[in-house]
Amino acid sequence: MSVSEQTKFVYFFNEGDASMRELLGGKGAGLAEMTRAGLPVPDGFTITTQACLEFFAQDGRYPAGLQAQIDAAMQRLEKETGKHFGDPQNPLLVSVRSGARASMPGMMDTILNLGLNDETVVALVKMTRNERFAWDAYRRFIMMFSNVVLDVDKHIFEEKIADAKQQGGIKDDTLIDAATWRSLVDEFKAMVKEKSGRDFPQEVREQLDLAIRAVFESWNSKRAIDYRRYHKIPDDWGTAVNVVAMVFGNLGDDSGTGVAFTRDPNTGDSKLFGEYLRNAQGEDVVAGIRTPERIANLQRSQPQVYAQFEKIARKLERHYRDMQDLEFTIERGKLYMLQTRNGKRSAQAAVKIAMALVDEGILSKKEAVTRVDAASLDQLFHARIDPAEHFEVICRGLNASPGAATGQIVFDPDSAVEWKEAGKNSILVRTETTPDDVHGMIAARGVLTAKGGATSHAAVVARGMGKPCVAGCEALQIDQRARTLSMNGKALREGDWITIDGSTGNVIPQRLALIDPPSKLPDWLAEFLSWADEAREMEVWANADTPEDAAKARELGATGIGLCRTEHMFMEADRLPIVQQMILANTPEARAKALEKLLPFQRDDFIGILKAMRSYPVTIRLLDPPLHEFLPSLEKLLVETTELRIQRGEQDPEYQSKRAVLQRVQQMHEQNPMLGLRVCRLGIVYPEIYAMQVRAIFEAACTLHSDGVDARPDVMIPGVGTAEEMKTTYEAAKRVADEVCAQHGCSIPYRIGTMIELPRACVVAGDLAQTAQFFSFGTNDLTQTTYGYSRDDAEASFIPKYLELKILKDDPFLVLDRKGVGALMQQAVRSGRESRQDLKIGICGEHGGEPSSVAFCHQLKLNYVSCSPYRVPIARLAAAQAALGSLT
Amino acid sequence: MSVSEQTKFVYFFNEGDASMRELLGGKGAGLAEMTRAGLPVPDGFTITTQACLEFFAQDGRYPAGLQAQIDAAMQRLEKETGKHFGDPQNPLLVSVRSGARASMPGMMDTILNLGLNDETVVALVKMTRNERFAWDAYRRFIMMFSNVVLDVDKHIFEEKIADAKQQGGIKDDTLIDAATWRSLVDEFKAMVKEKSGRDFPQEVREQLDLAIRAVFESWNSKRAIDYRRYHKIPDDWGTAVNVVAMVFGNLGDDSGTGVAFTRDPNTGDSKLFGEYLRNAQGEDVVAGIRTPERIANLQRSQPQVYAQFEKIARKLERHYRDMQDLEFTIERGKLYMLQTRNGKRSAQAAVKIAMALVDEGILSKKEAVTRVDAASLDQLFHARIDPAEHFEVICRGLNASPGAATGQIVFDPDSAVEWKEAGKNSILVRTETTPDDVHGMIAARGVLTAKGGATSHAAVVARGMGKPCVAGCEALQIDQRARTLSMNGKALREGDWITIDGSTGNVIPQRLALIDPPSKLPDWLAEFLSWADEAREMEVWANADTPEDAAKARELGATGIGLCRTEHMFMEADRLPIVQQMILANTPEARAKALEKLLPFQRDDFIGILKAMRSYPVTIRLLDPPLHEFLPSLEKLLVETTELRIQRGEQDPEYQSKRAVLQRVQQMHEQNPMLGLRVCRLGIVYPEIYAMQVRAIFEAACTLHSDGVDARPDVMIPGVGTAEEMKTTYEAAKRVADEVCAQHGCSIPYRIGTMIELPRACVVAGDLAQTAQFFSFGTNDLTQTTYGYSRDDAEASFIPKYLELKILKDDPFLVLDRKGVGALMQQAVRSGRESRQDLKIGICGEHGGEPSSVAFCHQLKLNYVSCSPYRVPIARLAAAQAALGSLT
Repeated sequence: MSVSEQTKFVYFFNEGDASMRELLGGKGAGLAEMTRAGLPVPDGFTITTQACLEFFAQDGRYPAGLQAQIDAAMQRLEKETGKHFGDPQNPLLVSVRSGARASMPGMMDTILNLGLNDETVVALVKMTRNERFAWDAYRRFIMMFSNVVLDVDKHIFEEKIADAKQQGGIKDDTLIDAATWRSLVDEFKAMVKEKSGRDFPQEVREQLDLAIRAVFESWNSKRAIDYRRYHKIPDDWGTAVNVVAMVFGNLGDDSGTGVAFTRDPNTGDSKLFGEYLRNAQGEDVVAGIRTPERIANLQRSQPQVYAQFEKIARKLERHYRDMQDLEFTIERGKLYMLQTRNGKRSAQAAVKIAMALVDEGILSKKEAVTRVDAASLDQLFHARIDPAEHFEVICRGLNASPGAATGQIVFDPDSAVEWKEAGKNSILVRTETTPDDVHGMIAARGVLTAKGGATSHAAVVARGMGKPCVAGCEALQIDQRARTLSMNGKALREGDWITIDGSTGNVIPQRLALIDPPSKLPDWLAEFLSWADEAREMEVWANADTPEDAAKARELGATGIGLCRTEHMFMEADRLPIVQQMILANTPEARAKALEKLLPFQRDDFIGILKAMRSYPVTIRLLDPPLHEFLPSLEKLLVETTELRIQRGEQDPEYQSKRAVLQRVQQMHEQNPMLGLRVCRLGIVYPEIYAMQVRAIFEAACTLHSDGVDARPDVMIPGVGTAEEMKTTYEAAKRVADEVCAQHGCSIPYRIGTMIELPRACVVAGDLAQTAQFFSFGTNDLTQTTYGYSRDDAEASFIPKYLELKILKDDPFLVLDRKGVGALMQQAVRSGRESRQDLKIGICGEHGGEPSSVAFCHQLKLNYVSCSPYRVPIARLAAAQAALGSLT
Repeated sequence: MSVSEQTKFVYFFNEGDASMRELLGGKGAGLAEMTRAGLPVPDGFTITTQACLEFFAQDGRYPAGLQAQIDAAMQRLEKETGKHFGDPQNPLLVSVRSGARASMPGMMDTILNLGLNDETVVALVKMTRNERFAWDAYRRFIMMFSNVVLDVDKHIFEEKIADAKQQGGIKDDTLIDAATWRSLVDEFKAMVKEKSGRDFPQEVREQLDLAIRAVFESWNSKRAIDYRRYHKIPDDWGTAVNVVAMVFGNLGDDSGTGVAFTRDPNTGDSKLFGEYLRNAQGEDVVAGIRTPERIANLQRSQPQVYAQFEKIARKLERHYRDMQDLEFTIERGKLYMLQTRNGKRSAQAAVKIAMALVDEGILSKKEAVTRVDAASLDQLFHARIDPAEHFEVICRGLNASPGAATGQIVFDPDSAVEWKEAGKNSILVRTETTPDDVHGMIAARGVLTAKGGATSHAAVVARGMGKPCVAGCEALQIDQRARTLSMNGKALREGDWITIDGSTGNVIPQRLALIDPPSKLPDWLAEFLSWADEAREMEVWANADTPEDAAKARELGATGIGLCRTEHMFMEADRLPIVQQMILANTPEARAKALEKLLPFQRDDFIGILKAMRSYPVTIRLLDPPLHEFLPSLEKLLVETTELRIQRGEQDPEYQSKRAVLQRVQQMHEQNPMLGLRVCRLGIVYPEIYAMQVRAIFEAACTLHSDGVDARPDVMIPGVGTAEEMKTTYEAAKRVADEVCAQHGCSIPYRIGTMIELPRACVVAGDLAQTAQFFSFGTNDLTQTTYGYSRDDAEASFIPKYLELKILKDDPFLVLDRKGVGALMQQAVRSGRESRQDLKIGICGEHGGEPSSVAFCHQLKLNYVSCSPYRVPIARLAAAQAALGSLT
């Protein structure tokens, strides 16, 4: 926009409309729209955000033409109200209010009652025949103006009022009489002079000018900047300024002020929900000095006004086609609307309101689908702390897996299992977790770790289990030997009660009451998601490792398993010793023997999961982690062998056997296990492991097939980076699969494909697709290698700092990095499909359940996203919104 | 090529030439070329490699037309020689020899004297009037044919000959008389029948047919396949077959056979170099039964023949424009040439011969530059084991840093320093090295590790120091406590002598004499490289961390420092305690204090290196490794604290202080340090570290400037992955640099740029170049993240297996992966230069000194390559060859 003398910087409310939000700000556009709709709105005008930006660009000078336009607008306002600004007989009073494009509640400044001075206050007394009101209004104006414009601390005024109340022996501001207010006004003016070095301005045009400038400048206050940073609002939007003729809610009991939602923002119920304060100005509601009444009470005290308000509320809702958040004032029985905007609401309310609006014929189903924040659905599937509880948060970690849990502290997984067997609820508290801890995580109600980020082992496994987890709680120090912990000076012992909230990251050192989530998908949500299903183009699958998870995923709407990890199966108590035998085997024969023992376990695992998903594809990933993850930890062994050596000597047989294990673990130790002997490298160096797994998969499928179950296994090779790896592992797997099918005389439809989780795989995707029948992006690992960040380390160390410094806009492990990782994905999709037209492509990283990432996957034209079962509803909704274009 | 009856499968020697190597094989093309040049070559013809491939394609059947062409060729050969194949009066005898496109010495089969049978042998007696010769020839034929064609073990024949010699009381085959050979022929035929189940074939056409098939099939013998795998020769080349009329070197003292190089292949001296065996057939030279004479002796015994040979050698050298490797036979005073090919030679000989050929007007300087294998220059700069030494290799590791070293075993770096001070040579033997070991590596003569690959810490640091290293020697087990090691059953103690050869990976458990390399660039090499410099387009810089290394780099021709690592400066004994104070500091103030103490050290380091490189750019990389690398190892601390706890109790003050360090180390411990808090992340989280380093750099430059030294520091930010990281670190560095320059009132020209070592950096390179003034590819790290391989782990675990299985063609840490890593580099170069036209781009990974990778960098149009000082000559030559198009 070019700026000239002709540029229109000022809009009367009847000159604007809702579409001009960018120029007029949210409040200004709402007032304009209500004015156009014929609703009772005080007269006024809006100075545009463009004027604000020009003001900044010119180092605090008004752009050419602005002053003249303001003057003209004030003249028009005088004409419309029949009052005159600064007139000692019939003075016009105005409020000056900020209003940015996005709502920033309480962040910027508002000044009421502007236009009062020593003369006009006298006129106000006469006009209202209410001396107390008038002097109260003046002192309010002095307080607000001095605070906002002259930077005088408002507490000095409040102290004076408190002194006056004490002297008068009264408790409530409303009981202060006119004389007292009047003498306080004098005192306030003296204080202003003392603090600011100038007289309180009596010239009303100067008041207005200073107020407008102050509102502009409040855009750059520290709190406003912090707020924008947190909510990711651009700095270059600027704020508009609304100048509104004053109406007064504090002119007696037939006056008042209030806020209301057109529907219940918690439940979505279709009835007005809000608060009303009799004989008060808006700021009194915010200040919380008096307790407001429920809006319904207005129906009894002022039935006509209430009826009018209800009608307006319905009209606005229909007009905006959404639930509204309203502000209003009643001046001596006359209703004025001061604000309307779309109301914030809970997930449940969002869904129910959207559905009700469809019922009421206001929205189409497709529109309804776009109206619910997909991420918010997460709230519905987790326990939360009873809002009635009072508690103190002792420290905060990462909100790694949502939901709240309360239980007694245990420090090791075995204790968690014992306590569970004894019927106790425990919280497993660890420095960090490893696969060795999984049985303890299963037994505990929740997990709290001192290290590790939102995609650390603890977080990923807990999310997969749908179990609350607070991770990377840096203030937490554990003394494993003493079985104690300390957090910010608070010491706790094993067995002490603790509550963690994985949705907020809060840790509370006490037992709290929780509210459980519904045990199944509520009917209303199921119906709503069925609308989403009609709109979306991508399939939604789930990551699930057990029949229970698979069943849960189906219940929540998944139509396939995109990632079934086989390593968790290796971790269970009855298998781990065999797995360890296999790893410690010195000969291929000994290894083969151990693998033979594992085969029936794996086959049973696969029977369970393939059966649960009958007729849907189950993508089974062959062994992925480095083998040393299945062995005892090096650190533990070092301590234990040192103890044994000193206490029993080097000849002790236990020392010697433990030392042998230590040596093997040291031999297998890797500097950077994430980049070591894992994924398909394992399957190539030890082909017998993958052969056993593929055999187990197809024996399971054939067994089910003979029972009439339609088993659909797909085999996924992890971590492929070269065409040769793909070909070698593909051929080996196909050989075994075909052999098993031939032995059983049955024909199982299957595909063999690969995870795309290395930058090189993206670059050579065209070559991989010559062999691979499907791709599944493993974006956790792909993000790690593309950025060179270890998920186990980065989220607890430098990522928080990076977010703070805006070096990262989002944590790339939570929100897919489109520019880097995404560009590589795009390259892979393009060259993969060039090579194989019908290549099925999905995603099975954590991002598969994050709405923005799901939208990006839609843009890449992926066939499916796969996420943890509890995120399936989110992904269904996000995929629909992406297809409808409302989520980009 | 399409195959039909008309396809020509057989070429007489006078029908081919040197350009037909692909079709005729190396030997066939050489014989054809010599025939065309009018040199004395026996008559004969070549069956093409195409015939061989068709033979394989048709499962061992001759392609249509081949048999007829062979028959016709034999008729022509009969006509030209005037002899008849199988004729009992005047028999034609032939040799059947393999000959692939590439030389595969001794890998495939040759049969001499074919055409002999019970009848023709009698004719041979008559024709040669030499009964002993004829029967000797027949028994040789039976032995070779039976071995090659009928798969009879040749040892059973050799045993029979040995028995006969014992019975006759003679030692030398040449003393066996005609009658004995004749009776041995009868015995051999009986043995053949027994072992192969068939009579020895008397029909000469059958002999020929079987021999041709056997030569074809020898292409697929195990040893040939293994050889091809090792030398990276494609399997689908096939071999040609040469059928050559026999000439005999064993017809008396005026006959003989020999091999010769036209120049000395070790020194390059311009004189015939070779061996000659009187009265012998070619196989006798190979068999090594008799000791040949030096070729010069022929000058005395047959001066005319020698003169003819010398003339032919000169002619061939001029003809082929290169030093030739010749085979010849003299039959009763008449010289026959049997083979010519370019001769293999040492690096020194290669350079000297190429230069001599320029002097002689045979080659241009540019051609000479293309004639030396760049990688071979490495030989010239390292000590080697005296070839006169006899020794046994006890085990083999990776040839991680070239050169040989001999010394006494030490197991820790401090001992290496003590021993050096005591005047002893030591070899540092470690499981793996860390930066804590660097002072020991400096003190030791060489390094041997049990773990880690060719780019492990030990390997990289050793190569940087030009110190021999054998890494990842898996057979090596160290008992650190007992100060002993064992290797394949051999036990050694501290102080025992050991020799390592970092060029071969050999480990020898004894003291050996070494031959030292020249102390400076020899004049002849300097001149030769100056020719290369004229041809090349890229600059060659060096990676150097010390003034000594920088001086060495200049001496070897580097015109800049592409990578000066600052972390090694932190490791020196007088600094490490301050660095540790800095890391363990609990407050920014304490950290600042430690950094202040480090500043003068760093400044002095930079003064030294900038001075050594005066007028050339020095690219200084700010701190790169994670801070915990400067702290004691977690494993060591775990053992020590456990010992102290048990032995002295938890109240012991030493235990408590060590435990505090342990806790800090545990706190800083990272799962995958390669992907952790390092590179520019460090500089962003702890900006005071980079600020100190930049201050030290520019204080050094200003100090030098005031002394009239032209210091040219460039600041390199490591591990940038986002535009925001680049901008933040750029601005911080620039601020300090400009401030220091302003304080000193001097103007230092400098650039600030970044390492490109993450896939994401390649993808967003265009954005980075908005800020960065240069790029330097860190291809070690880029390879790690692109493949998802940790260099510390992969080279010692799965990479060898991958190479064996041909999943990888080369170790990507040694030879740049063009398809994956290279594609990302190309993307970065393109978008970087789009964004900033004059962007300077180089490479400073290990690949900067590897010829194939240098060639790729030339293709990418990089401005420079930077490598370790000792690789500078290699890079200079490779860059020239790339520019000349001979290295691609």
